Amino acid sequence: YPNSYSSAEDPIWRYFTAVAGQDLEVDAEELQRCLTESGISGTYSPFSLETCRIMIAMLDRDYTGKMGFSEFKELWAALNAWKQNFITFDQDRSGTVERHELNQAITAMGYRLSPHTLNAIVKRYSKNGRVFFDDYVACCVKLRALTDFFKRRDHLKQGVANFVYDDFLQGTVTL
Amino acid sequence: YPNSYSSAEDPIWRYFTAVAGQDLEVDAEELQRCLTESGISGTYSPFSLETCRIMIAMLDRDYTGKMGFSEFKELWAALNAWKQNFITFDQDRSGTVERHELNQAITAMGYRLSPHTLNAIVKRYSKNGRVFFDDYVACCVKLRALTDFFKRRDHLKQGVANFVYDDFLQGTVTL
Ligand SMILES: [Ca+2]
Ligand SMILES: [Ca+2]
Ligand SMILES: [Ca+2]
Repeated sequence: YPNSYSSAEDPIWRYFTAVAGQDLEVDAEELQRCLTESGISGTYSPFSLETCRIMIAMLDRDYTGKMGFSEFKELWAALNAWKQNFITFDQDRSGTVERHELNQAITAMGYRLSPHTLNAIVKRYSKNGRVFFDDYVACCVKLRALTDFFKRRDHLKQGVANFVYDDFLQGTVTL
Repeated sequence: YPNSYSSAEDPIWRYFTAVAGQDLEVDAEELQRCLTESGISGTYSPFSLETCRIMIAMLDRDYTGKMGFSEFKELWAALNAWKQNFITFDQDRSGTVERHELNQAITAMGYRLSPHTLNAIVKRYSKNGRVFFDDYVACCVKLRALTDFFKRRDHLKQGVANFVYDDFLQGTVTL
């Protein structure tokens, strides 16, 4: 039983099964409990329910509103990368990144955006000029999910995509 | 001074100026206070900061992250319409609409969506099968803002639109 063995050994399997229940899928409330219990936010505030909902929307490709263990592991890896990233950009260890630092972080993640779009993003995810970890992650989730969605429709890889209305809404309204 | 006179007479001008400060623009925190003080949520929970942020994103066409009085009045009218709508669809007066009722409400607002997209939306904005007023409004804001954005790019009015990546992100990531 190689799969169940490795799952049992996996330290995050414990957090997942503690909240997932019999169906081994977590909804947004369960994901919030799961992430809080895992301590992944460290000294930062726990994730809001809203951020947990968009985390699920990012990975929930069958739109059940729930997340299985493989998606959870994918999320876990992404969260750890974003957390490292956040710590790196919070140079004065104030617990928040400042607006210009979010700007740098987004560019460092490889997104190529116009100054206008970057500016709109930074305004949207900051509070009084400071970006908290929860909002930082919400921003990273949205950027990744929307970019992935766009790329799947950008068949010629030219940075241009065509959408029919229903498809456009499906890929954007749940994030 | 017809404009300042009519503003002074306007009952919501009072709520607006009480929080907007000298620049007469409200950010998300101020909007939350303003809406709470106005009592527009009635017996429902006050709006979350997250919902206030997407309300601003919906109307903030210059991406300053703030809302002036004319946008605020536009929001006020929309909120009142959505509230009436919510009350109508909450037939058992439980304070929430149920999933199938959100489905009906969205269709009644004139959106023509596939069952798959409707289903994804209903899952996203409900908690244990119930949709609270705050999430209902968040859903209405997103549907309206994303549909408006799409329509502005649907030049032939055929339900198909072309986006370049930066523009696509600009219209979706702040909502
Ligand atoms: Ca800092
Ligand atoms: Ca503005
Ligand atoms: Ca009800």
